[in-house]
Amino acid sequence: MDEFSLIDYFFKSRARRADDLILGIGDDAAGLRLAFGEDLWVSTDTLVADVHFGADWDPYDIAYKAIMVNLSDLAAMAARPKWVLLALTLPNPDPSFLQAFSNGLFDVLNRLEVSLVGGDMTKGPLSITITVLGSAPQGQALRRQGGQNGDKIYVSGYLGAAAFALKHPLSARFEERDYHLLQEKLKRPEARVDLTPILQKYASACIDVSDGLTADLSHILKASALGACLDLKAIPLHPLIRKYHFDALAIEEVLDFALYGGDDYELCFTIPAQKSLIFEQELQEEQKSAYCIGFLQHEPGLTVLDQKGRAVVLASRGYRHF
Amino acid sequence: MDEFSLIDYFFKSRARRADDLILGIGDDAAGLRLAFGEDLWVSTDTLVADVHFGADWDPYDIAYKAIMVNLSDLAAMAARPKWVLLALTLPNPDPSFLQAFSNGLFDVLNRLEVSLVGGDMTKGPLSITITVLGSAPQGQALRRQGGQNGDKIYVSGYLGAAAFALKHPLSARFEERDYHLLQEKLKRPEARVDLTPILQKYASACIDVSDGLTADLSHILKASALGACLDLKAIPLHPLIRKYHFDALAIEEVLDFALYGGDDYELCFTIPAQKSLIFEQELQEEQKSAYCIGFLQHEPGLTVLDQKGRAVVLASRGYRHF
Repeated sequence: MDEFSLIDYFFKSRARRADDLILGIGDDAAGLRLAFGEDLWVSTDTLVADVHFGADWDPYDIAYKAIMVNLSDLAAMAARPKWVLLALTLPNPDPSFLQAFSNGLFDVLNRLEVSLVGGDMTKGPLSITITVLGSAPQGQALRRQGGQNGDKIYVSGYLGAAAFALKHPLSARFEERDYHLLQEKLKRPEARVDLTPILQKYASACIDVSDGLTADLSHILKASALGACLDLKAIPLHPLIRKYHFDALAIEEVLDFALYGGDDYELCFTIPAQKSLIFEQELQEEQKSAYCIGFLQHEPGLTVLDQKGRAVVLASRGYRHF
Repeated sequence: MDEFSLIDYFFKSRARRADDLILGIGDDAAGLRLAFGEDLWVSTDTLVADVHFGADWDPYDIAYKAIMVNLSDLAAMAARPKWVLLALTLPNPDPSFLQAFSNGLFDVLNRLEVSLVGGDMTKGPLSITITVLGSAPQGQALRRQGGQNGDKIYVSGYLGAAAFALKHPLSARFEERDYHLLQEKLKRPEARVDLTPILQKYASACIDVSDGLTADLSHILKASALGACLDLKAIPLHPLIRKYHFDALAIEEVLDFALYGGDDYELCFTIPAQKSLIFEQELQEEQKSAYCIGFLQHEPGLTVLDQKGRAVVLASRGYRHF
């Protein structure tokens, strides 16, 4: 099959139709219509084999992670994802790869009601570039720069499991169920698009935790020209890291997974202090949770209250490509 | 420099600001605003080293071609390009590469008043994925499926030069000026975005000639459920191919460059017969030209009147990735 037939079979035929889609896969460009009063939010991310995922991963997981990593960028703006474009570069057009890959892709897209509207398929070293397009009512999207002095800092879920799974890839040392849970944290992250409505309502700034909490929070601090104070005891370390708290690891090293480990794709956001109570109540009513880990302050840099309540200034570090 | 500094220095600092840009490079997503009554048109294309361009090319040309190939997809819809996202994968962050690459990119973007609004930079085998976003007044974009029986078929310029340059890469057999012109045709194609207003007004279907005239025209024929009759004498073969009509090549082989050679990025479009006269007049007033090469017909397939006026049925073939 040539690339046109492959695209038709594995992607075009499975792409969902939607009213906001004027023209989908199969022409030179896709035509999309935004509702009146909505702004467009777009982002693109590339995932390269053996950098962002293992070339030996199940293609289902490769697709799953690739799409979630991108959707997470829109979640970080509190924009609702609507459409995606997929640029897939493959060494060869292996149908079993494409079958599993498209299964992973469409399982996510269909569940979240996002449409694949176009893309490209080329021959070359395995890599995936996805562009996500979404919308938010004018003025309701969140930026990194919106944080104000005194705002409370939250994270949307447990941190560190993906980095922990990456560092401990072998199953031998885990109970089977735990091993699978950890692998799932690494390979099938969930973009927190479910929080978009409540974040539009209450949050002042937001980012997704892709490079590590301190590195990503630092972007909010820099953009908002503020510093932060974090309570180390409040950082929601993933319970499985605590469970497998190997003797060799001190608590500080364990917390490293939560502070510096990337790939969790939870959201880190700030809420004005006077709105934090009603935010937490509404969150609870929706049976969701978030963890308040500190607050923004005028004093620059990242100060952390350690286990014993002593203030320590942290260096921000996170994943760097070069 | 880490990737954030590289992005700031080579891309963010040079990106043009525009009123339609709510938020550009530097957050998790870019925010864009469409004018009332406009639809969004988006397309993405990947260029891989040693597939779409030589790894030894001047990075200026790599960027130039990458952006033009993508803008050409919007030109084919008669949509006006407004914004682009750049996903750049590089083996290493060579500043001289990035300097030349960004020069090529911004020379095109600034001239065409298109804004770079976001992207990604990752480590890996050299490849470039660009997503272009543009707009057209509702209902005025062109699709491949719009062709009607009797419509005249046009191409917007000379064909075959890029394929000819690719086949004859050495300078020895050309006059120096001609060699540079041919190399430019291959490495710095011009997306025909200049034709967008007149095509919105008159054309019924359009595609860009990226894989070769017959292959690309076939997409219009398939989408419009029609066939075509082309006059071989009317195909605008690039004059430099005629000039270097090497003795070894028969005229049919020379024409092969125009019929099957890709990478020209001229437009192939159809105009209802009753509008063709006024279209050609208006085109002339704008000091532009296009070549009528045939017409759409009910009889399926691609019929060509050869040099002696005999009808021959052509196979469509063009570049295939797999």
